[in-house]
Amino acid sequence: MQIGRVIGSVVATHKEEKMGGLKLLLVQLHDLRGKPLDAYTVAVDSVGAGLREMVLVAAGSSARQTKTTEGKPTDATIMAIVDSWDVEGEVVWDRERE
Amino acid sequence: MQIGRVIGSVVATHKEEKMGGLKLLLVQLHDLRGKPLDAYTVAVDSVGAGLREMVLVAAGSSARQTKTTEGKPTDATIMAIVDSWDVEGEVVWDRERE
Amino acid sequence: MQIGRVIGSVVATHKEEKMGGLKLLLVQLHDLRGKPLDAYTVAVDSVGAGLREMVLVAAGSSARQTKTTEGKPTDATIMAIVDSWDVEGEVVWDRERE
Amino acid sequence: MQIGRVIGSVVATHKEEKMGGLKLLLVQLHDLRGKPLDAYTVAVDSVGAGLREMVLVAAGSSARQTKTTEGKPTDATIMAIVDSWDVEGEVVWDRERE
Amino acid sequence: MQIGRVIGSVVATHKEEKMGGLKLLLVQLHDLRGKPLDAYTVAVDSVGAGLREMVLVAAGSSARQTKTTEGKPTDATIMAIVDSWDVEGEVVWDRERE
Repeated sequence: MQIGRVIGSVVATHKEEKMGGLKLLLVQLHDLRGKPLDAYTVAVDSVGAGLREMVLVAAGSSARQTKTTEGKPTDATIMAIVDSWDVEGEVVWDRERE
Repeated sequence: MQIGRVIGSVVATHKEEKMGGLKLLLVQLHDLRGKPLDAYTVAVDSVGAGLREMVLVAAGSSARQTKTTEGKPTDATIMAIVDSWDVEGEVVWDRERE
Repeated sequence: MQIGRVIGSVVATHKEEKMGGLKLLLVQLHDLRGKPLDAYTVAVDSVGAGLREMVLVAAGSSARQTKTTEGKPTDATIMAIVDSWDVEGEVVWDRERE
Repeated sequence: MQIGRVIGSVVATHKEEKMGGLKLLLVQLHDLRGKPLDAYTVAVDSVGAGLREMVLVAAGSSARQTKTTEGKPTDATIMAIVDSWDVEGEVVWDRERE
Repeated sequence: MQIGRVIGSVVATHKEEKMGGLKLLLVQLHDLRGKPLDAYTVAVDSVGAGLREMVLVAAGSSARQTKTTEGKPTDATIMAIVDSWDVEGEVVWDRERE
């Protein structure tokens, strides 16, 4: 999975019928140190993630292994909201500190 | 999914038989801010997208999860037409403004 | 799918038994404007593509959705021969003009 | 598979229900010579890997082929702990020498 | 598939149980002209490839379509040993000439 931040959403009224009712969030990927990268994905939300939350995105066929996305044409799904992460024993990012 | 714009189409009369009748569109990928990238994909259209529309493309096995593409040898499918998207609360792109 | 040109072939007498009899073609990927890129794939041919033809290559599990490649360990398959493509209403490449 | 080192872990109390109880480790990818790369993945651990161990990560649908990860929305799984590797007959990295 | 050379092997005594008995080879990817690239993969061998042989590697779910790797958590498998390849009618690499 990659770490990213929810920075917006995509409106698409005309979409494949199986995608009806799914929230499409814009996620900017981040590096190990929590720095935003020049890369993004539009992901289906399966955990109720909100704007500016740091999340984990699963890509490829794994994006279809949630109840929300089973059998649907999505290649990216938010499957966790990140509380914190550490690198070499040091907390790099913590939602409480934001 | 990645955001891209339909900028053309590909003609291929000689193709794998399961691909018969499918529209092959040329989609130039765009970044978060709506800037065209130096990357593209040839995608099967499952939603009736037209030239110059901004769309979402699903890649990999997810590209086969639409009625149009089930069981077909496509690794990229347009599964939504984008109306608009926002970043940090600001509308970055809106089809009404084009 | 990506656009590429068949520029050669690979000989491999010792291969996984399911790959027996399959043609392995060397495909150089091209950009939207028909310019060769510094990237390639070795693809199984499912449509009788010849040397120097421009083709479409499907990657990943989609490469196994043709009659030729079903259940076989290939991650790239030529599933169409390109006649022409256009960008912004202008023909960029046409096999008749080559 | 790619070689990487476990350099931390990710805490995510709110995640897709199937991910319950799984350990999410932060793995920094390394090159052939054992040099850390500017790339990472958040992987599910299927072998009891510990902090600072060098591991192998399987990506994509292959990440779901372990007992720990079957049917779960993970696109990266640690499926081996590396003891050593050699390049051109020379040992490049050995956990005994660390 | 990508072309690469077997340049070493990885020892991992502690691995996912389904990986037992499989040989893990280090493959350095090569470009069209046979020049080594700054990229590698650790692949399961399904054809008895030896050190310094040039091989084809299948990635993703296709890596599991061999007898050796069926149902196993590998995302890269050597499925052919390369004898030679040509580009634009000229032999670029031939194992007899090495």
